Amino acid sequence: MTNIKNDLLLRAARGEKVERAPVWLMRQAGRIFPQYRKLRASLSGFKELVETPELACEVSMHPVDELGVDAAIIFSDILVIPEAMGLAYEMVEKKGPNFPKTVQTSKDLDNLIVSDGEAVHYTTDAIKLLKKELNGKVPLIGFAGAPWTIFAYMVEGGGSKTFSKARRKLYQDREFSMRLLDMITDSTINYLKAQVAAGADLIQVFDSWAGMLTPVQYKHYAIPYLDKICNAINEVPVTVFSKGAYFALEDMNGLNCQTIGVDWNMNPKELRKIFPDKTLQGNLDPCQLYASVSEVKEATKEMLSVFGTQRHIANLGHGVYPDTPLDSVRAFVDTVKESA
Amino acid sequence: MTNIKNDLLLRAARGEKVERAPVWLMRQAGRIFPQYRKLRASLSGFKELVETPELACEVSMHPVDELGVDAAIIFSDILVIPEAMGLAYEMVEKKGPNFPKTVQTSKDLDNLIVSDGEAVHYTTDAIKLLKKELNGKVPLIGFAGAPWTIFAYMVEGGGSKTFSKARRKLYQDREFSMRLLDMITDSTINYLKAQVAAGADLIQVFDSWAGMLTPVQYKHYAIPYLDKICNAINEVPVTVFSKGAYFALEDMNGLNCQTIGVDWNMNPKELRKIFPDKTLQGNLDPCQLYASVSEVKEATKEMLSVFGTQRHIANLGHGVYPDTPLDSVRAFVDTVKESA
Repeated sequence: MTNIKNDLLLRAARGEKVERAPVWLMRQAGRIFPQYRKLRASLSGFKELVETPELACEVSMHPVDELGVDAAIIFSDILVIPEAMGLAYEMVEKKGPNFPKTVQTSKDLDNLIVSDGEAVHYTTDAIKLLKKELNGKVPLIGFAGAPWTIFAYMVEGGGSKTFSKARRKLYQDREFSMRLLDMITDSTINYLKAQVAAGADLIQVFDSWAGMLTPVQYKHYAIPYLDKICNAINEVPVTVFSKGAYFALEDMNGLNCQTIGVDWNMNPKELRKIFPDKTLQGNLDPCQLYASVSEVKEATKEMLSVFGTQRHIANLGHGVYPDTPLDSVRAFVDTVKESA
Repeated sequence: MTNIKNDLLLRAARGEKVERAPVWLMRQAGRIFPQYRKLRASLSGFKELVETPELACEVSMHPVDELGVDAAIIFSDILVIPEAMGLAYEMVEKKGPNFPKTVQTSKDLDNLIVSDGEAVHYTTDAIKLLKKELNGKVPLIGFAGAPWTIFAYMVEGGGSKTFSKARRKLYQDREFSMRLLDMITDSTINYLKAQVAAGADLIQVFDSWAGMLTPVQYKHYAIPYLDKICNAINEVPVTVFSKGAYFALEDMNGLNCQTIGVDWNMNPKELRKIFPDKTLQGNLDPCQLYASVSEVKEATKEMLSVFGTQRHIANLGHGVYPDTPLDSVRAFVDTVKESA
């Protein structure tokens, strides 16, 4: 059925029996590797890396080659979707994303398009290259941002402590909000289908700013759009990671996805009760990797014992921080791999 | 026992019977008022306002005079404590606080002091002036940051999306962390006792970055220090607002405080079960005030009905945003006041 030699990740996602939890790290392709930092320094910026398939493929391979993780994730950015819809962004060094123009009115929406599967061709091309390069070694993870999170950036114009401009929009203009969320959702489905066609073996949807919404807003402005995405992607397993949405767990259990991402605040034992039929992914605090190697090993073992070996994908509770010592990352990965 | 004419806030905090919930807003003294913005524009910066008792008193009166809220809160800043301990900060316009020097080593701690009750004399002086100006109209709220939140700023050096430098410290150097937390706690107790002596009728402790910690870390590095503060302040009721600490609610129920602050993600019905003997303060989404006046009224009524009239202090789930229309703030306050 699958030509992947190490298919632990896919079996864990589908709820099949595994010898041990598979392990990978969010943001595993990136600054933790000296070869990444060297390459990045030679380029004009972050977006050159995202938009050059050969380079995106190269950096996606670092954690597979160097750490022996159980999955590759394509190097890309969730903000490629707003750009494909017609809203360009720039990545400002040490500051983060910035949208010179934002969307505020229905007229602004008239100027956007629902992007098709060809729109982010550099990422789907990178997936094809990476698939070839992996040669069936481990599964390849594709990803996109969740509609609310993408909406937040497009309306706010960049990162924010409160995302109050984006959240204000939900209160002030429901029609605008739902129309934009629909456009993002349809663009995202087209994009994710293209990723699967290009070779992605599993899809993860990142709702990074889920924790900003009230429970009622999450029910109205996030869950239905996530639901639409989950129902559209049938060919491969789907993981939804709604950071901070502890108040929406029961709604999330209703999503047609196989795996739920879990941040480091959440209690795995309680989550097992709420998600009896889903796989859980997470949830070591990324800051734990700043501790000594022996403490990292202890904490990883503790995490594994709390989740149990089945229906768990070992990961951090958030992306690995760029200045994390590689030895600690290795200790985390090795501890999981030695747990069989 | 009290010379305060409108003592709704104090009765609600103590769990005594009230005709209706008292109402005030976090950050009510500030940019929502044109007279504040005018005054601020005439000054060298934010800190001049904090450090000039007459001006701090003046802006603290705006919401009492203009909105008729049931409490005044002294205009100040949680970062006066690091400064009193020997770590100066600057407030950078449109960016937030910045510490030119941070604390990283035990040697850095040797250069700090535990500040005494006289250290932040401008704020205690402002409280004395405000107490006089209020003339018993409504209670006066004093405040401080919680030890973990102050620690986070002192180690990180400013705001952060992850506070990864501060959290790293908890993993890397427990001795340093506990020593600094002890110093902050003792300084804070001295400061809060001085605020009470100057006339504060209720104390609120803000743990703004509570949601960054793991449940285990909150138990070790936040709760014991909050506990020490709550036990030290006996003369007046104490409110603890640990933003985002949904995972630590049971620990918080053990604190010797009267009121628990609640953010807009939290479910009041569940909170009533967890905190059967405490008053709850909150929790309208500050972004709700961007909606139309009639929607603000509806949402406020809905909030009041979920909390019920007793053991509730009506407030937002976070500080009011600076660009909130004053009419909406007024609609929020009036709706609570008309609910009797």
